[in-house]
Amino acid sequence: MKTILIIGAGKSSTALIDYLTEQAKPKNRQVILADISLDLAEKKLKGKPQTKAVSLNIEEEEERQKLIKEADVVVSMLPAFLHGKVAMDCLAFEKHFFSASYESEELKVIADQVRKKNLFFLNECGLDPGIDHMSAMRIIDHEKKSGNEIVLFKSFTGGLLAPECEDNPWKYKFTWNPRNVVLAGKGVSRFIRNGRLKFIPYHMLFRRTEKISFEDVGDFDGYPNRDSLSYRKVYGLENIPTILRGTLRREGFCKSWDVFVQLGLTDDSFQMDLPEDFTMRMFINTFLPYHPDKSVETKLMEILPHLDEDTMNKLEWLGILGHESLPRFKGSPAEILQEILESKWQLLPNDKDMIVMQHQLEINTGQGQKVITSSLVIKGENQDQTAMSKTVGLPLAIAVDLFLEDRFSSRGLMLPIHEEIYEPILKELEKHGIVFKETETVAQT
Amino acid sequence: MKTILIIGAGKSSTALIDYLTEQAKPKNRQVILADISLDLAEKKLKGKPQTKAVSLNIEEEEERQKLIKEADVVVSMLPAFLHGKVAMDCLAFEKHFFSASYESEELKVIADQVRKKNLFFLNECGLDPGIDHMSAMRIIDHEKKSGNEIVLFKSFTGGLLAPECEDNPWKYKFTWNPRNVVLAGKGVSRFIRNGRLKFIPYHMLFRRTEKISFEDVGDFDGYPNRDSLSYRKVYGLENIPTILRGTLRREGFCKSWDVFVQLGLTDDSFQMDLPEDFTMRMFINTFLPYHPDKSVETKLMEILPHLDEDTMNKLEWLGILGHESLPRFKGSPAEILQEILESKWQLLPNDKDMIVMQHQLEINTGQGQKVITSSLVIKGENQDQTAMSKTVGLPLAIAVDLFLEDRFSSRGLMLPIHEEIYEPILKELEKHGIVFKETETVAQT
Repeated sequence: MKTILIIGAGKSSTALIDYLTEQAKPKNRQVILADISLDLAEKKLKGKPQTKAVSLNIEEEEERQKLIKEADVVVSMLPAFLHGKVAMDCLAFEKHFFSASYESEELKVIADQVRKKNLFFLNECGLDPGIDHMSAMRIIDHEKKSGNEIVLFKSFTGGLLAPECEDNPWKYKFTWNPRNVVLAGKGVSRFIRNGRLKFIPYHMLFRRTEKISFEDVGDFDGYPNRDSLSYRKVYGLENIPTILRGTLRREGFCKSWDVFVQLGLTDDSFQMDLPEDFTMRMFINTFLPYHPDKSVETKLMEILPHLDEDTMNKLEWLGILGHESLPRFKGSPAEILQEILESKWQLLPNDKDMIVMQHQLEINTGQGQKVITSSLVIKGENQDQTAMSKTVGLPLAIAVDLFLEDRFSSRGLMLPIHEEIYEPILKELEKHGIVFKETETVAQT
Repeated sequence: MKTILIIGAGKSSTALIDYLTEQAKPKNRQVILADISLDLAEKKLKGKPQTKAVSLNIEEEEERQKLIKEADVVVSMLPAFLHGKVAMDCLAFEKHFFSASYESEELKVIADQVRKKNLFFLNECGLDPGIDHMSAMRIIDHEKKSGNEIVLFKSFTGGLLAPECEDNPWKYKFTWNPRNVVLAGKGVSRFIRNGRLKFIPYHMLFRRTEKISFEDVGDFDGYPNRDSLSYRKVYGLENIPTILRGTLRREGFCKSWDVFVQLGLTDDSFQMDLPEDFTMRMFINTFLPYHPDKSVETKLMEILPHLDEDTMNKLEWLGILGHESLPRFKGSPAEILQEILESKWQLLPNDKDMIVMQHQLEINTGQGQKVITSSLVIKGENQDQTAMSKTVGLPLAIAVDLFLEDRFSSRGLMLPIHEEIYEPILKELEKHGIVFKETETVAQT
């Protein structure tokens, strides 16, 4: 009997746990779910047979290593910065390792050892990274095999709100880690377009968007996300003239979010210690020039020439120009902003989230140029069965299952960019409703 | 016979070395000048009596400690990040320590030990920090003693070009460390105005300037520099409603420099690796949106609504929109920009630098409000006897001399903010032409 150890029973683990525990008895496996909260782990297992909840403080080396030693495969659903410890133990005790997070530098260093010990370490097998890689590589490999040349690749993903729940002017609520949303886009974004390298500094990012349209759910703002250039190698598109990976927000979100960026409200590099009588309006005013009698609104409009009425409405809806007390007085501007937003962008019990993803490719064929657009829209069912949990957890759960079924012959530090891995995962995802809609047209000239 | 050890014979040490070596024989002292280049050290000493040049690699602990052990006072003219090693040795071997750099956290930690060992560690005794503290504290202490209340304190400093040498449209050349100039203003700037806390993110800084005028040398742009709030405590102005410390550039410089900031050219956080056929124009274009046929100039004007003809002229003068090859292809954007600027903003043999400093105070007296403006303008004599070297080195040299003359009774980790220290230094500086011009007027209502 094989033992699967899942570490982390948080929100994004729900679908993964359900999938793997469902199979435990029929496939004669044991699933151990470890979390700092035993309660949470027990609840998530729903008393299914051949499962066990354990309490684990990941910093306790002895406990952690004891659990890992007893497992055959280990799935880390911890925050990304904690994967390292688990992965190192897996290497030491020769256990296979699975995560939905980016392959870290720490892991790249041990790639040789992983291969030598004949282990399977799979990362980036969630949504983004994960489903994006797999669905893109399926198209890329297919076109290459047909002898075609891909000259443009763009890919956008967003974790958003289902349209029927967009009941505020931002059309946004936090459907995943609010801190990551507030800090999204930090650093410089890099891509290449028609052979021209492009670099966008953070303070320009939310002005440099493009419209991305979905047949069923409308228009979105797409902005470039971090280092798209590195994907040329990963996707085997070394000489492609245009490659860009980006993030989606509902149309109109970015121009309004840009106000926070321009003012400095998303700065996480220094701590404020504001007087306890500070209101939201006073907080905004600290980032505006002093004037003896101009209003905050007037100063905002003077300093931000792009500010329009729609954005002013969004700011007013947030109450951020109002006289209510700040929810916290100490912290970075980003932390204070996050707490303001959390009270306003909270999911209601009936709210559903939505994942949108779109790949765009331009391909030179023997017969001319064609354009492929491949789109995915997944809506959550409820607060527990979210689209995010499903799209992050299912691919990884399926990968674990397929691995235990001996369906992968490759070993080493892997990404799901190889046909042997992505093809059966995508097939199984389709059975669960995760299906891309693909259109192919002759390119516009 | 007392021994003064000076570590670092670089450009900013010239005036300090001259002052202290001149006195060596008459005051029966020995001056040892240590530098990685023995040649440079020998040249700077000009063969004066009772002086000795030695070669020192600061990383070589044994050599360094041997020199420090033999000294009575140690003057560190090293780059700021190297002071720590020297200061720690001074603490260990009970030697007095002098520097013109900011008091680091590393030094604050040992403050108690310095005091207990009855040592004198003086930092921030150059120009800025240095002369700014001393001249400001002289006014502040005087007004407080007169029973007056200071309600506004602003202080600006610039290391610039003498007006008669402003022969390019930027009216600027590098008169000190180019890297520091390119990165100037990084981080958030904090100050308080009429009781309102103000925070300016870096990307807004060069738009939030104010005009600072000097009777003799005209108008400058002043922008807030880092954390002005911390000076409330240092200057004993805890409850002052307005305090701001800033940096000066020639009028019109900041709006043009802002182009580089907005584009992301001053970003030092990531490395570019550009093709070796890259021109300056292509470099600029990497930070602009792609467009199949719009020119770089058109895109610049579209993305930067503040761009005016004057700035376009400055950019053209730099050749940064031209087809010349980039001077380097690898490095951060800031490093590449610096190298472009270094070839254009180079001092010619006859160019002179200039230091400008201005304090502005508003003071409530028994008889109403008055305004004090205290201004300093120092021009360099030539490439060697620069205003920067004079204003950085002389205050520190004078402090060392006065200390050896037993003129300071205080001990511990000190700044030159105490009358016992600043008053005799300012008096001696006046003999060397470093004189503030003070005007006092009734406040405008």
